[in-house]
Amino acid sequence: MTPISRRAAAVAPFLAMDVMAAAAARVRAGSDTVRMEVGQPSAPAPRPVIAAAQRALEAGRVPYTEALGLPALRERIARDYRDRYGVAVPPERVVVTTGSSAGFILAFMSLFDAGARVAVPQPGYPAYRNILAALDLVPAPMTLRAEARFAPTAALLAATHAAAPLSGVLVMSPANPSGTVITEGALRDLCGQARALGLPLISDEIYHGLSYGVPTATALQFDADAVVINSFSKYHCMTGWRVGWMVVPEALVRPIERLAQNLFISAPYLSQVGALAAFDASAELDAVRDGYARNRAILLDAFPGLGLGRVHPADGAFYLYADVAALTNDASGFCRRMLDEAGVAATPGLDFDPEAGNHHVRFSFAGSEAECREAVARLRAWLA
Amino acid sequence: MTPISRRAAAVAPFLAMDVMAAAAARVRAGSDTVRMEVGQPSAPAPRPVIAAAQRALEAGRVPYTEALGLPALRERIARDYRDRYGVAVPPERVVVTTGSSAGFILAFMSLFDAGARVAVPQPGYPAYRNILAALDLVPAPMTLRAEARFAPTAALLAATHAAAPLSGVLVMSPANPSGTVITEGALRDLCGQARALGLPLISDEIYHGLSYGVPTATALQFDADAVVINSFSKYHCMTGWRVGWMVVPEALVRPIERLAQNLFISAPYLSQVGALAAFDASAELDAVRDGYARNRAILLDAFPGLGLGRVHPADGAFYLYADVAALTNDASGFCRRMLDEAGVAATPGLDFDPEAGNHHVRFSFAGSEAECREAVARLRAWLA
Repeated sequence: MTPISRRAAAVAPFLAMDVMAAAAARVRAGSDTVRMEVGQPSAPAPRPVIAAAQRALEAGRVPYTEALGLPALRERIARDYRDRYGVAVPPERVVVTTGSSAGFILAFMSLFDAGARVAVPQPGYPAYRNILAALDLVPAPMTLRAEARFAPTAALLAATHAAAPLSGVLVMSPANPSGTVITEGALRDLCGQARALGLPLISDEIYHGLSYGVPTATALQFDADAVVINSFSKYHCMTGWRVGWMVVPEALVRPIERLAQNLFISAPYLSQVGALAAFDASAELDAVRDGYARNRAILLDAFPGLGLGRVHPADGAFYLYADVAALTNDASGFCRRMLDEAGVAATPGLDFDPEAGNHHVRFSFAGSEAECREAVARLRAWLA
Repeated sequence: MTPISRRAAAVAPFLAMDVMAAAAARVRAGSDTVRMEVGQPSAPAPRPVIAAAQRALEAGRVPYTEALGLPALRERIARDYRDRYGVAVPPERVVVTTGSSAGFILAFMSLFDAGARVAVPQPGYPAYRNILAALDLVPAPMTLRAEARFAPTAALLAATHAAAPLSGVLVMSPANPSGTVITEGALRDLCGQARALGLPLISDEIYHGLSYGVPTATALQFDADAVVINSFSKYHCMTGWRVGWMVVPEALVRPIERLAQNLFISAPYLSQVGALAAFDASAELDAVRDGYARNRAILLDAFPGLGLGRVHPADGAFYLYADVAALTNDASGFCRRMLDEAGVAATPGLDFDPEAGNHHVRFSFAGSEAECREAVARLRAWLA
């Protein structure tokens, strides 16, 4: 009889991954399926990335790297902060990670001890609260309102801290699932509020590079001690490569190095080599982003006519978060039927919001334009 | 001012990784260095693995996979248990992981809650105790003695549990750093003792396939509920690919799936595709192992003449764990000087044994024969 830990018994599934597994099984069984469930670009990694990985394979060796990552990649990421944001980040403060997933584990473990309360946006990326809980930390939801653009504010942070003292706060912009970009002024205020309260701020910037007509600021512009988490999965179209990075305060570098040595050894080598080449692919990647902008316009245009009109018009990322209260109060069942009957996979809102999520559905528009049009046609027929 | 968690402040470095970073910096600075510090084959991944990864890159898409891994890879791993050990393992119980590192995190998290004591071999792989401590679990060392082949026994497990109650036990064979293979009878007894005490048993089998004249048994032969951890890093020469696997009891599959979805998303795609092809490379990989056997013979032959005679003659893996008490009581300083002065990188024993490690050094013989001979020549000159 195998014991199961309380934390494992309690941890919630990442529903998007469950839907992905169901959709993949459906595809293997021969059923045509439009995949809008996972935040995954349908575009391949850019050509320079593929070419760099191929050269590495030809050379033969695919070794462990230093736990903090290949020095050349850490330097290139640091340079990008200067070029893109005008922020000076020494390479020593850049940590290459096995996707943003490892970044969250390292950030949470290095900043917090068991029982610490960490403010997280709700709706928000489900792994925040699920990783926190798995580490015996306590997610403290900051409830975001559609009426306020699903944007967290300094006042909301202060109120969350006043309700029960926090040990840290996590913010995300552009956000998953809403696509909301926190304005530069609001981000400055959030950073200032966190500092005033003595709270370390973790900024998830994984959707940077993907916004539609609005700029995205890094928390490092306003808080030199912010812990920034990012990844090559989204803008750089490198999901399955599992490579990302953090920027951390100098005092955290060595503790995080020790944790990473033991917990991860290193991020995958081919992925690090590929990531270094991704910085040479901006034109190709911006063209992919322009495709998302077209997909976004297609869905924003069509959804009201489908009864999916209560949609937050994402400023960034590649999701529409639709309020489906007019159609259902059981988004999970709705998504299951949509997959079975219409062949469209999307993720129920409970993934992002255990409270109000049951009448929301997240649609990813990171696929191709043809897939978006096909999804609209299928949904039109199914919802009619 | 950034807070640092108690667990991060307390976590020990993985010294082999620190030596690796120092050795890599030395190589970048142009100094010729023999690398014996990390358990990393110098042989490249086998040709079918490289070819499979190249084909995947040509096809373009490198996506997330299901959190438990590509179904075809899970099936192929399950088949290998039947072919190699005559053990029936359904594919559903195979979990593909981002190296054995993710396997340990998932095993510890799914079996144990904060405060649980877990017996681990000492000397042993340092990440066991460091990951346990980072998760607020308590490593309980089972002190292994050179006189007893550094092999854990059922009696030692029982005594460790009697001293303070355990929640689980971890064993490893072939072992790091000693190379010890637990005999089939002793493994059966350990599994029986764990079951009698009601303790889940985690069996680290990462060095399976690498033994010199002795067979290696899987714990699954004696305990159908054992949690087995393995990896493609060692026998399959795929370190930097970061891909491994677990075999887990049915009751743990879904809890581990939920944890993996949130903590890791999935193992790297190219690595999973490569791993599937690794099963077609046995002849190539056995030839690499035969090279280790020659390296082992070279070192076992030369070390006594160098004053490194108190060496455990590893039955498996690719390490010699040398007692250097006659030369130093500060193995860390010894290793630093050996790197600086002789250009030979090896890992101080404190990594593996916080108590008796200060007079042990671990030498990896996973490099080439030429490197082993060069190391001997350098050590002969340096120690003279």
